[in-house]
Amino acid sequence: MNFSSKLLENAVAEFAKLPGVGQKTALRLVLHLLKQDKAEVERFSSTVSKLRNEIQFCAICHNISDQKVCEICASPKRDQSLICVVEDTRDVMAVENTNQYNGVYHVLGGLISPMDGVGPSDLEVDTLVERLNKNEAKEVIFALSATMEGDTTLFYLHKRLKHFNINISTIARGIAFGGELEYVDEITLGRSIATRVPYENSLSR
Amino acid sequence: MNFSSKLLENAVAEFAKLPGVGQKTALRLVLHLLKQDKAEVERFSSTVSKLRNEIQFCAICHNISDQKVCEICASPKRDQSLICVVEDTRDVMAVENTNQYNGVYHVLGGLISPMDGVGPSDLEVDTLVERLNKNEAKEVIFALSATMEGDTTLFYLHKRLKHFNINISTIARGIAFGGELEYVDEITLGRSIATRVPYENSLSR
Repeated sequence: MNFSSKLLENAVAEFAKLPGVGQKTALRLVLHLLKQDKAEVERFSSTVSKLRNEIQFCAICHNISDQKVCEICASPKRDQSLICVVEDTRDVMAVENTNQYNGVYHVLGGLISPMDGVGPSDLEVDTLVERLNKNEAKEVIFALSATMEGDTTLFYLHKRLKHFNINISTIARGIAFGGELEYVDEITLGRSIATRVPYENSLSR
Repeated sequence: MNFSSKLLENAVAEFAKLPGVGQKTALRLVLHLLKQDKAEVERFSSTVSKLRNEIQFCAICHNISDQKVCEICASPKRDQSLICVVEDTRDVMAVENTNQYNGVYHVLGGLISPMDGVGPSDLEVDTLVERLNKNEAKEVIFALSATMEGDTTLFYLHKRLKHFNINISTIARGIAFGGELEYVDEITLGRSIATRVPYENSLSR
């Protein structure tokens, strides 16, 4: 694209680096910002800069937090012996939204993905092992995506943790509630027949 | 959504104000920025802030520019008596990319849209009239979108400009090159029959 201004070109290039944002979308976003008040745009840019400079991660679970120890880890109402291992803060939010979980979390900060050059040392794996060494945890629940990367991470973590005397579980996989059988993919359906559960256990609370 | 950090929540709220960006996309973009180096994020935020504070608009055509008068208006190779009226800088880029146009531009900065509260006074209409008063323009070409807003603007501008002794034209509307007849909408097809051109004129250069 031939831009009429270098400033415009630079801003579009910066926005186009964001995931899922191409040149045309970036230009649309930048032109939108240009139509806003200066104060509005200043707030946008300072919020972004402040976020990156002042953000903290909880010293225990490594979730994004404003304090040294996050609210969940600091809460006496939470069961500290139950640790749910997730990829990132979005998954913490998703589990919290269910209102079904009363334990604490451990945020890995990603999944093992050799294709993207992400290995165990890039994730909060050692800190999880350390935490289990110190803590009297009874159970670790893996709540990872049902993808290649999720399964690889699960396999690796299980190997690292199996010598601990704790229960290791993963969230149930199968057909989603409300899912119609004819639209379910073959792998999910096949596996959900193989891992069928007694009728009594299948009822949701 | 329940965020674990106020800084995160603020940043997501700022991104969610951008057009076409919802809360989930905003969170994805913010988490992407969090994974980048501090210097990288600093560059992003300062580029945005600099853009808004230092951007200039060409004093003649009102296109975004780094100088007081943009390259196109300042160029002696351009035909200053041919003015193409467009909505915004994206349209200038689109026309420039055709390599078929040698005149200059006038950027309105929007289209008349009563629904969005945009009237002629919000656009660069008076400056266009002024420009035609001063300038020895021979022709004004309207290159506006074929939408309700585009047509309204066209109708209004034609009324404002018709007393000038210049040619007023609009870009041709009809079936796009490569377009298959069966997929063309009825209005376009009906109009393109009504406004049919002699065979000799239909050949592209």
